Amino acid sequence: MSSTLRHVRTRLKDLAEQAGVSTATVSRVLNGKPGVAAETRKAVLAALDVLGYDRPEKLRNRSQGLVGLIVPELDNPVFPALAQAIETTLSDRGYTPLLCTQSPGGTTEDEYIEMLIEHGVDGIVFVSGRHADTTASTERYHRLRGRGLPIVFVNGYAAGVDAPAVSTDDAVAVTLAVRHLRSLGHERIGLAVGPDRYVPSRRKIATFTALLAEQRPDEDAEQHVVSTLFTVEGGQVAGGELIDSGHTAVVCGSDLMALGVIRAARSRGLRVPEDVSVVGFDDSPLIAFTDPPLTTLRQPVVAMGKAAVSALMAEIGGTRVSRTELLFHPELIVRGSTGPAPAAPAAPAAPAAPTTTGSAEPTPRAAGVP
Amino acid sequence: MSSTLRHVRTRLKDLAEQAGVSTATVSRVLNGKPGVAAETRKAVLAALDVLGYDRPEKLRNRSQGLVGLIVPELDNPVFPALAQAIETTLSDRGYTPLLCTQSPGGTTEDEYIEMLIEHGVDGIVFVSGRHADTTASTERYHRLRGRGLPIVFVNGYAAGVDAPAVSTDDAVAVTLAVRHLRSLGHERIGLAVGPDRYVPSRRKIATFTALLAEQRPDEDAEQHVVSTLFTVEGGQVAGGELIDSGHTAVVCGSDLMALGVIRAARSRGLRVPEDVSVVGFDDSPLIAFTDPPLTTLRQPVVAMGKAAVSALMAEIGGTRVSRTELLFHPELIVRGSTGPAPAAPAAPAAPAAPTTTGSAEPTPRAAGVP
Repeated sequence: MSSTLRHVRTRLKDLAEQAGVSTATVSRVLNGKPGVAAETRKAVLAALDVLGYDRPEKLRNRSQGLVGLIVPELDNPVFPALAQAIETTLSDRGYTPLLCTQSPGGTTEDEYIEMLIEHGVDGIVFVSGRHADTTASTERYHRLRGRGLPIVFVNGYAAGVDAPAVSTDDAVAVTLAVRHLRSLGHERIGLAVGPDRYVPSRRKIATFTALLAEQRPDEDAEQHVVSTLFTVEGGQVAGGELIDSGHTAVVCGSDLMALGVIRAARSRGLRVPEDVSVVGFDDSPLIAFTDPPLTTLRQPVVAMGKAAVSALMAEIGGTRVSRTELLFHPELIVRGSTGPAPAAPAAPAAPAAPTTTGSAEPTPRAAGVP
Repeated sequence: MSSTLRHVRTRLKDLAEQAGVSTATVSRVLNGKPGVAAETRKAVLAALDVLGYDRPEKLRNRSQGLVGLIVPELDNPVFPALAQAIETTLSDRGYTPLLCTQSPGGTTEDEYIEMLIEHGVDGIVFVSGRHADTTASTERYHRLRGRGLPIVFVNGYAAGVDAPAVSTDDAVAVTLAVRHLRSLGHERIGLAVGPDRYVPSRRKIATFTALLAEQRPDEDAEQHVVSTLFTVEGGQVAGGELIDSGHTAVVCGSDLMALGVIRAARSRGLRVPEDVSVVGFDDSPLIAFTDPPLTTLRQPVVAMGKAAVSALMAEIGGTRVSRTELLFHPELIVRGSTGPAPAAPAAPAAPAAPTTTGSAEPTPRAAGVP
């Protein structure tokens, strides 16, 4: 056997094993023969990529076109996760994704839009963009729609803009978190969110205050809400305030904020979850490895990415899709940062406001709370 | 005072506070007046972005051009971190970054290169691309250089390609880790890396086996190296093998692998760092929050991003920069996943190979180890 032939055989065997198909199928795909299912073809191409073989020129995908994908930044791990999910789906559909990310003082959403238009993109997906900011003008989106460019919004809803929107359901998220904490006996639950000009913050606050008002209609629910930034530092500030005012549990607007709340608790000599329970929002692979592993609300990023791309593809193809916002249910992933309410208020100093002493036993859920 | 005027004054005050400058300076920047330092102008623009104000049209940066940035994927947090660092620097220099990320079976590096060329990019930065794979052809890079397109490599070195390269120094990284573990009394140290066809894996293995050979010249150093994948699962497999063969400490090729090694240790009823010490590689903000907080080798992503962009800008401007690979020193960040060697071998079953019992006391470093 010649050395080249042996090399080819090894390669076919490796690829077949990696792709979970026969060497004959690998061979068919590599030679561009017909009669191979799209899924199978993709598995073989993926095996080539994973094993580090170059894709033969004739197997390169001919791009259907470019699609822009604008995300705010990559520091919060939910944005790379959403970007990866959307890009993978775009590639699957034959489109070449162009990812545009921002940093304060750097290239802005408007500058990216201009560049993408200049380069003839077929559509743009906006993730948590200016559309999610209730104080921002929607003019830029009207202009894009006026040109007939298909656009899709992810997480954030700009009323009146003619575009499909895909979001995680913030009302469901907060309800799941509050229900979980109440079932653990927590009576003083706080909410820590980012700037309240953002749609997801507003929605979380609205649901949270409604749930609190149902239980204690005479109380000002707003005192249990602190709005800072979506970062660890933002969470630390918000968490500190909520803990100091006698809260035994904090629901957060992001996982980074939740890590900040845990830090605030520990800097006060309190333990999580024994003294303070913390619920995050987003979830991403590393969050399962935090100390303690974070109880959080998982955004279904893969399903959302697929839905956003499907809507965009339909619009690019000339099929108008519904303008009713697609709301995806988050899942409550219970890990180690939530536990029974402490027997006594957690705050090191007794809070000024009157507090009910939490019970270590789960209390029955208040009527009317979903 | 009219309501509009009051609004403008509030806005100026907020911006001045956020940017740490006077309202007069904010006003000068917003009105495009001259005599403002570039740094100050940037601080005001960043304040606009952070506070969610739209950047006035006349203050939009005129793009110097497009630069492509190709990264392998976004699941490993070091890639979003490097991408963010490089993009921020490109924006600072007036270039519009185009981020291209991959997933197995999706758009490939070659397809992205084609697209970027079609759209007239001024240069391309490759992060851990095919250039880092010793089995891949360098033909694609020669072709780009043949067209006169400036390119820069980050983390990985393709010998013979006419391009600047910026990498983390893997030899320094492994030396720092081994020295740290030896000073804690570990005698059986293993190395868990990704596929050994990648330059960074090869370099880590070469340094590691050299360090081991210095101490025990008669032993086959390769038995202490396991090469799997850069993922958590890859780390779990490699860690399991190394622990089962009596290693009390594992140096990893990525933080994700390190988390996998910790998982492997725990699934065997062992504690980290009491029974097994683990050192990661990469570092990113979330890694400080893992359980235990991970001791790791930090890649200086911001400095590397700046160096890569500086080299590219010089080449775009027609100034040839040195082809000597720029090696950046990683820092050993000691957190909670490394500790003194256990008094007895950690493996649940006694290993077949003869092992020296580790001492809880730090042992003097072997002569000749840097």
